[in-house]
Amino acid sequence: SPSDPPRPTQVQELHVYEINERDRGSPAYLRLSQKSVNSLGDLVPFSNKIYTGDLEKRLGVTAGICVLIQNVPEKQGDRYEAIYSFYFGDYGHISVQGAYLTYEDTYLAITGGSGIFEGAYGQVKLQQIIFPFKLFYTFYLKGIKELPADLLGKPVSPAPHVEPSQAAKACEPNACIANFTD
Amino acid sequence: SPSDPPRPTQVQELHVYEINERDRGSPAYLRLSQKSVNSLGDLVPFSNKIYTGDLEKRLGVTAGICVLIQNVPEKQGDRYEAIYSFYFGDYGHISVQGAYLTYEDTYLAITGGSGIFEGAYGQVKLQQIIFPFKLFYTFYLKGIKELPADLLGKPVSPAPHVEPSQAAKACEPNACIANFTD
Amino acid sequence: SPSDPPRPTQVQELHVYEINERDRGSPAYLRLSQKSVNSLGDLVPFSNKIYTGDLEKRLGVTAGICVLIQNVPEKQGDRYEAIYSFYFGDYGHISVQGAYLTYEDTYLAITGGSGIFEGAYGQVKLQQIIFPFKLFYTFYLKGIKELPADLLGKPVSPAPHVEPSQAAKACEPNACIANFTD
Repeated sequence: SPSDPPRPTQVQELHVYEINERDRGSPAYLRLSQKSVNSLGDLVPFSNKIYTGDLEKRLGVTAGICVLIQNVPEKQGDRYEAIYSFYFGDYGHISVQGAYLTYEDTYLAITGGSGIFEGAYGQVKLQQIIFPFKLFYTFYLKGIKELPADLLGKPVSPAPHVEPSQAAKACEPNACIANFTD
Repeated sequence: SPSDPPRPTQVQELHVYEINERDRGSPAYLRLSQKSVNSLGDLVPFSNKIYTGDLEKRLGVTAGICVLIQNVPEKQGDRYEAIYSFYFGDYGHISVQGAYLTYEDTYLAITGGSGIFEGAYGQVKLQQIIFPFKLFYTFYLKGIKELPADLLGKPVSPAPHVEPSQAAKACEPNACIANFTD
Repeated sequence: SPSDPPRPTQVQELHVYEINERDRGSPAYLRLSQKSVNSLGDLVPFSNKIYTGDLEKRLGVTAGICVLIQNVPEKQGDRYEAIYSFYFGDYGHISVQGAYLTYEDTYLAITGGSGIFEGAYGQVKLQQIIFPFKLFYTFYLKGIKELPADLLGKPVSPAPHVEPSQAAKACEPNACIANFTD
């Protein structure tokens, strides 16, 4: 069998925007608790679009599920356990798991990946900009080779008004990665 | 980008009790199979409290989902696929995945973590004490820095009668970790 | 605490067939979207049998859940987010997460494992042979010790007509691994 060089432990930052453009039927809030308040038992499969941190390129989609753990009345929000992946077209994917709180930033675990993200580990910061439609992620990636420049544009600071470029939204050839996931 | 020292491969044991005090509406047994016997199709979101192995400190909660795989009549029990995380307040979290058998101890995979558990890997032994209300875990953690003494009290041997201290149950300041997850 | 030798980064290939013999009530297609076309909101718990790549030995089962993300009419198929484990009897298990497309091969992340697969990482190629009854996997495993010869028979090339040996299907003692998962 072939042998790899030592596994890289350098931290590489990767910035990603996740945006719900309300055209994918997401999220699907399954009120399986049969309660009027969000409660343990509710499940929320979801899939949104993702863009580079500079908002100039469409990357792909997120895909996964949030498990409602607890309604937190004093925060007027909810705690979810989130289990999902980020798809980057031909580049591959990153899987993550951890807390999604609708009222606070969190760090999730990077549990693995494929393609250029094969062997990825570390954590990712989730920042909510507009619940639940606009989120900003900073991946602190370890275990992988140097990221392609394609993914590394200077990030736009997260703010409610920020939007992907029109070209990126339209998935124009110069504004999306190769075989972006759709 | 900054560079980390080589990833630690030393094994560190961490002991945790998971206790269902029946005050979190957990578990939510979703009988989606619509069968009278537990069957594939049933899903069980859950969230319980966790305490240090010495039962002197409240740590936080578990959060996740069990997928009913199979009823095992000869063992009078069930096989689940368990996908969940352990939350340790300001210290961060550990995500795990693997088999939960209601009639037998199992080992689950540590798939990642955040905070002081960033980059965690290895496995965790799940021991059932009183189904499904009291469980004892031994994490065999790799990939992380030295654990804080705060988490490392001498574990109480698992037995049906063991209980967290009254101070820990009451989350008194000296009997819980910083910003314990609730 | 004991210390381990440096974590292996050598790639080891492991071939596995997953076969739905229609005797486990799997999959359980939960049409929670309440739509007539497969849609976000549908969940699919499943558990199938697994065999060695040479089809001479029963290994165990898969166990987990597929989250329907999207129906893809132009491919006459579906995108799922798959979160599951492979159980290998006394040898332990491997957990994986990633895309399952009913119309195309994919690579999933290896997120961890137990037993001889403790500390496993890397990726696994999923090849569909007969949807959704016969699949072939090539694990590219890193982070673990040398695999036992028991698991490493020469793989049969994936093709619609291939079948496990009669002895393996019957779980005869010489045609299954120790305490194969059932």
